Amino acid sequence: WLNSYLRAPNDIYRKSQKMIEHDIDVSGFDEDMQDVAIRMIHACGDVDVGVDIAYSAGAASVGRTALAKGCPILVDVEMVSHGIIRKRLAQHNPVVCTLNDARTPAKAEELGTTRSAAALEFWGDWLEGSVVVIGNAPTALFHLIQGILDGRFAKPALIVACPVGFVGAMESKETLIALAGDLGVPYITLRGRRGGSAIAASALNALAKKGITQ
Amino acid sequence: WLNSYLRAPNDIYRKSQKMIEHDIDVSGFDEDMQDVAIRMIHACGDVDVGVDIAYSAGAASVGRTALAKGCPILVDVEMVSHGIIRKRLAQHNPVVCTLNDARTPAKAEELGTTRSAAALEFWGDWLEGSVVVIGNAPTALFHLIQGILDGRFAKPALIVACPVGFVGAMESKETLIALAGDLGVPYITLRGRRGGSAIAASALNALAKKGITQ
Repeated sequence: WLNSYLRAPNDIYRKSQKMIEHDIDVSGFDEDMQDVAIRMIHACGDVDVGVDIAYSAGAASVGRTALAKGCPILVDVEMVSHGIIRKRLAQHNPVVCTLNDARTPAKAEELGTTRSAAALEFWGDWLEGSVVVIGNAPTALFHLIQGILDGRFAKPALIVACPVGFVGAMESKETLIALAGDLGVPYITLRGRRGGSAIAASALNALAKKGITQ
Repeated sequence: WLNSYLRAPNDIYRKSQKMIEHDIDVSGFDEDMQDVAIRMIHACGDVDVGVDIAYSAGAASVGRTALAKGCPILVDVEMVSHGIIRKRLAQHNPVVCTLNDARTPAKAEELGTTRSAAALEFWGDWLEGSVVVIGNAPTALFHLIQGILDGRFAKPALIVACPVGFVGAMESKETLIALAGDLGVPYITLRGRRGGSAIAASALNALAKKGITQ
């Protein structure tokens, strides 16, 4: 292995894609979601997550259109931001993370919630028509859902929801799916406890540009 | 769920830890590895990765000692860097990522390899006694192993190896395990295709400070 491993980036990507398509039948996904599903599986090295990918009809197409118009990308944590491949963003879309905004800790204290959730209070005018990518915090997704339902937050064009973990992740994503009609916002999500910033960023990367290469 | 979800960060962490300890028997890990294993599982929301965690005896203790002395932390991608919780680093250890070094693309071309692998050529004096955390690229891990075997690279104190994916990830980690004796470097790894920057960073966070809270 040490002497024979693949070194050319695009060869590696192409072989990865072939291996994923060998292991699962991506034709089970709507056509506009197949690239997204392959890239999410690629990001975690686990074809089993395929069964947990859920989305509203046409969500990927809506996301692609919004990105092509230059919409902002709002993320809950810096790791998601750094997983987004900037050269795939043809419109140089702004990527916004307010978790480390100086006002966030006090806002979290005031609201009695996590910094991840409180950070959304500073998304303001960025939100309308944006693509939101949540890769870590269930509380951020819950806070977003509540804010939109209350009419306090503008509607993003698409929510990519991949919070991860044992407490609230599954629950927050099921809440999104259940209330999607009331929210009036399309979504792409990964049901269950699994998720994370790499999977979330990979979905965005697939929406930004076709194909699995860099 | 929308009205009753947990919002206090430390309550969330504590409940997560309890749920993980309920689902798997962490006493199967050496004592110095239990925190690391819990945090790696926490990062991906999947207790099943527990069976794939492998390490050389005493590796976690070696890592903790190196970090406590202020050793550098060398990472293959920015996502790992941004997953490392800086306030856990009592010695303000430098976190170094040379992937976006201006010299890296030309070096990758020269060596006929990925940028992720070529970036290691610029770790230089940082390497000796460092903790290396690889969260993405199998080629980076292969390149590190070869460089140490050749005597071109100094020895880190510990390698945390979590490359992810379908092409080379499993192979690079099995190579590390098989050659660990020749390398003379302790390791913590996640066998198989699964891995990624969140899991890699979480292992480092567990080494940096005891406990699952921020």
